[in-house]
Amino acid sequence: MDISHIRSFLKCDTPEAWLNHALKHVDILLVDHAKCEKKAASTALSLMFKYSERNELQIKMAQLAREEVLHFEQVYEKIQARGIEYSILTPSRYAASLRKLARDNEPDKLVDFCIIGAIIEARSCERFASLAPLLEEVGEVDLARYYRYLLKSESRHYEDYLELAALYSNEPIDKRVESFLAKEAELIQSEDQLFRFHSGIPISQ
Amino acid sequence: MDISHIRSFLKCDTPEAWLNHALKHVDILLVDHAKCEKKAASTALSLMFKYSERNELQIKMAQLAREEVLHFEQVYEKIQARGIEYSILTPSRYAASLRKLARDNEPDKLVDFCIIGAIIEARSCERFASLAPLLEEVGEVDLARYYRYLLKSESRHYEDYLELAALYSNEPIDKRVESFLAKEAELIQSEDQLFRFHSGIPISQ
Repeated sequence: MDISHIRSFLKCDTPEAWLNHALKHVDILLVDHAKCEKKAASTALSLMFKYSERNELQIKMAQLAREEVLHFEQVYEKIQARGIEYSILTPSRYAASLRKLARDNEPDKLVDFCIIGAIIEARSCERFASLAPLLEEVGEVDLARYYRYLLKSESRHYEDYLELAALYSNEPIDKRVESFLAKEAELIQSEDQLFRFHSGIPISQ
Repeated sequence: MDISHIRSFLKCDTPEAWLNHALKHVDILLVDHAKCEKKAASTALSLMFKYSERNELQIKMAQLAREEVLHFEQVYEKIQARGIEYSILTPSRYAASLRKLARDNEPDKLVDFCIIGAIIEARSCERFASLAPLLEEVGEVDLARYYRYLLKSESRHYEDYLELAALYSNEPIDKRVESFLAKEAELIQSEDQLFRFHSGIPISQ
């Protein structure tokens, strides 16, 4: 699947150092990925509770939550098939750092949460697409195929979130999107203490 | 579908006064039902986060969460088709009153939450089954059909929760189940200020 629109939306590609590290730590990657899917579903449900009056959000977030839970089940199955222990991993700085920048007043808070949602889905999409050929090279053919299968839904989720942001904003969202993307690129391109699915450059490299 | 095992599990049938009230307030019933499905999905996800190390729970709760979200979407569609406003309803005393009785130490807390989950699913199943023929009588054929369609999954969710409770308990769960069922019957058979999907006898009757 062509994800060039997602690559050009994001301000940078995933650095090679992260990709190399990821290939050596597929176990951590999978456990964190499973947790991210669970978290994504939970975030969608929280938005559904918080913004009960927003019709389009109810529908889009419900579909997204269902898909994320299904992905959790699929990744969880892979974790078990590999005999990896499903442990609790501390979260990376990524999502929290972006959410810290969200405005406090409504509907701006909702708009910012949707922009952040779009960016996280876009980055996930870009990482799956970047990892897939490398995983194939190291013989992880099934996992590569699975990551390619995820591209379609991640890319749709990115679009859904962006549409909701535009729908609920009282003004064009371009500038807000740009400022979140700048912060995101900084998080992706700077050194990071923890290696996670959305982390920056692993410090141990 | 035969739900006699569920009727004999619960200590009482839904009182006629509640059923009569429900038939006159299908709008509130639907809005509260949609919210219950959303809440059920959210509870399942919370359990998945809280008990990451419990393998069977991860799998069963993920499937349950997906189904509950799908039911939310279906009920939400009905609400919209009828032109009912999807508003925020204060919750009834039902689930909170049961949860207040849960033990604080683990794994007892988890066991009690699973028992409560089973009872809520069982009651939902019983109410759908009791409402369906009455809805048909008043010409609500589609809704009656939908409620009948829900029986299968609600009954499976009841069994899943009960299995998890037995699995994680260090002792037979019968006595705990009995004590929760006694409380539940009291909540169902006594007068209730609010009319909701899981409320007691409506005070305005």
